[in-house]
Amino acid sequence: MRDKLSTEPYKGVRDFYPEEQAFLNYFMRVARQVLESAGYVEYGASILEPAELYKAKGAENEEIVSEQTYTFTDRGEREVTLRPEMTPTVARMVAAKRRSLGFPLRFFSIPNVFRYERPQKGRLREHWQLNVDLFGSRSVSADAEIIRIAHDLLISFGAKDGEFEIQVNDRRIMEDLLNKIVGIESSETRQVIRLLDRFEKAKAETTAKIAELIGDQKLARLIEALSGETTMNRLHAVSEPFEAFQNMRTELAAAEIKTRYNHALTRGFDYYTGMVFEVFDTSGENTRSLFGGGRYDNLTQLFDDEPLPGVGFGMGDVTLYDFLKTHELLPAYRPPTDLYIAITSPEYALAAQTFAGELRGAGVNTAIDFGEKKNVGDQIKTAAKHQIPYVIVLGPDELASGQVKLRDLASGQERALARGEVAAAIRGA
Amino acid sequence: MRDKLSTEPYKGVRDFYPEEQAFLNYFMRVARQVLESAGYVEYGASILEPAELYKAKGAENEEIVSEQTYTFTDRGEREVTLRPEMTPTVARMVAAKRRSLGFPLRFFSIPNVFRYERPQKGRLREHWQLNVDLFGSRSVSADAEIIRIAHDLLISFGAKDGEFEIQVNDRRIMEDLLNKIVGIESSETRQVIRLLDRFEKAKAETTAKIAELIGDQKLARLIEALSGETTMNRLHAVSEPFEAFQNMRTELAAAEIKTRYNHALTRGFDYYTGMVFEVFDTSGENTRSLFGGGRYDNLTQLFDDEPLPGVGFGMGDVTLYDFLKTHELLPAYRPPTDLYIAITSPEYALAAQTFAGELRGAGVNTAIDFGEKKNVGDQIKTAAKHQIPYVIVLGPDELASGQVKLRDLASGQERALARGEVAAAIRGA
Repeated sequence: MRDKLSTEPYKGVRDFYPEEQAFLNYFMRVARQVLESAGYVEYGASILEPAELYKAKGAENEEIVSEQTYTFTDRGEREVTLRPEMTPTVARMVAAKRRSLGFPLRFFSIPNVFRYERPQKGRLREHWQLNVDLFGSRSVSADAEIIRIAHDLLISFGAKDGEFEIQVNDRRIMEDLLNKIVGIESSETRQVIRLLDRFEKAKAETTAKIAELIGDQKLARLIEALSGETTMNRLHAVSEPFEAFQNMRTELAAAEIKTRYNHALTRGFDYYTGMVFEVFDTSGENTRSLFGGGRYDNLTQLFDDEPLPGVGFGMGDVTLYDFLKTHELLPAYRPPTDLYIAITSPEYALAAQTFAGELRGAGVNTAIDFGEKKNVGDQIKTAAKHQIPYVIVLGPDELASGQVKLRDLASGQERALARGEVAAAIRGA
Repeated sequence: MRDKLSTEPYKGVRDFYPEEQAFLNYFMRVARQVLESAGYVEYGASILEPAELYKAKGAENEEIVSEQTYTFTDRGEREVTLRPEMTPTVARMVAAKRRSLGFPLRFFSIPNVFRYERPQKGRLREHWQLNVDLFGSRSVSADAEIIRIAHDLLISFGAKDGEFEIQVNDRRIMEDLLNKIVGIESSETRQVIRLLDRFEKAKAETTAKIAELIGDQKLARLIEALSGETTMNRLHAVSEPFEAFQNMRTELAAAEIKTRYNHALTRGFDYYTGMVFEVFDTSGENTRSLFGGGRYDNLTQLFDDEPLPGVGFGMGDVTLYDFLKTHELLPAYRPPTDLYIAITSPEYALAAQTFAGELRGAGVNTAIDFGEKKNVGDQIKTAAKHQIPYVIVLGPDELASGQVKLRDLASGQERALARGEVAAAIRGA
């Protein structure tokens, strides 16, 4: 005899029992509703991608691919990666059908993505991530549209303005700030932006590192520029994209969507070429950003010489769940089943199925018990375990009279009804 | 400069552009509706599973795991498999929460599953598969319920009775047929059943192999028993489960669901312990079975000493697609977007977003063009590429008068409407 197997899932991934699956379905349903309303269309792809899709961005990425992704060699000697993110996939797909797709192209997907990393809060090895992309426009109105959708999503999940904050910045403006206001050399810009990525999380450590790089004097100017109100006036004079960026914020403000201009917001570096944004929980419970995105105007260059502008964002199921939990916005679990039919003896299973068929035809989701080795009380306990709201017990009396008792399990109350009245009673409840 | 990357997906998997994704969503939506109506609840799990989950069934399975699945070793020296099927996963999950789950337990899931095999028609390396399971009942009414759901699914996808045929058998009855009617030794039963799995596909080859094993005389008796009507009467006398099996068929017939008793139907061997069924396309276009399932009364034994009865089936997206296509039952693609707003100049993008916001609030899914580098005709072509049914052109006249023209792109007809009448006109169309 072999030993019994463990019932644990693979390390760092989750089983979705009905309650967890119901949340995932809720996430997908609300996301689909918001995105389709805004004119976006859903696409999908396999989780398997050629590893070169992630290595292509340079040596640094090769390291990320080998250390932070699931990458293996198949028996055809192909190197294959479980996608760690959806963006390279959608860039590949759009590049493949560039001639037949219409632009602007509004695409969304809700894939699972994989990272090989130590499991920690909000950072599982597999999670689900809504991806929203608008390709083919350089308009600030496209930037505004993406931020508006991010906002509308949270509102559709029940959040109120004030429970979250949208921070915005622009990579080009940030470069102008660093080069033209602070006086940092272009050659150092990238490194400073990298360090600033941790500015709000670890101020002391980050400023020390920046001082090492650019000296104390420029650091003082940098800190003043990042926080000071006068920066706005100076940016107006030195940064060409500043006006359009402020117009985007004005467009959002007209739709009553507030944004906070965070001069230090970087959201990484290599991807983004223009506007970036991140959404934060204002409760203080979830300190990392909930999600974010930005503009990237050369994603398809790996496949194609012609540049294609894009702007978009991704939103993960785990951080959203934590946010909704903090703000008591998680929907209560309710199983899809409305009614459970218990029977006084196994011989009534067929009669129960017939009755269930009538009810299903009238829009009531119905399950039956087969009456094996259990008294009616045990069958009702089964319904309660499944959290099914209503129970009917079917026996010879009910079958002869056509009269049944509809029991509400939460209240314990019973209603006497003719068989034909049950569906309306449940649907009207 | 690196060479440009290929835009091809990984070998044997598919990209889901909006039309393909729409079919996958349709498959899932109809499946959810039918299953939830019947009292089933959705669960899910990661595609990553410990490899031992598939190896546990014995040496033969180790071969299948190493040759037909994606199995690799992670950096923690764990062997991990991309699930080739959902059944071991659901057995693991049910065993893990056996004490808190209520039985009978009705579970379904629509996972993607992976097989490492040569791509061929209907056998990709990744496909999506509806899995339906009813745990905790040995009732023939549970067997009937599973077959009824298989039937109802096809009807809900638009199929008519007669376009498909449900074939049924029972492993225990088949063993009685082989042992008690044909006279095959118990030690040879398993091998004969294995061979019979190919009986209808390759009759000559299969009968030659069986003759080798059991001799010509028994082969003649076997062929007679598999085809003959007299077998039914004899099974009645020699096979204890025969009566319950026929009762199940009677229960289905009462619900106007016909089943054909195929004495040679095996559907593999190791899984199933009772009823098995397979659904076939009667058109002759798709000769392999569309899908099938059966009863397995010891699935959780890998985890748990207490046996748990179960009955269920799986239905894949690719074979379903082929069946629906053959019978002209595929739904026409229609994008989720109802309306496209074109603008005569980029300066009207904000006005277009505002109008779009009003329409979305009134239930019309609306996308806008940003009016970059394109005349209005080009923008309307974009809407046509997206297959969006309606277009409105917004310019200074429309904004001043509040009057717009709603163009139906299919017919080319235009209707003059006040801005506030557009949503009702589209919704009422």
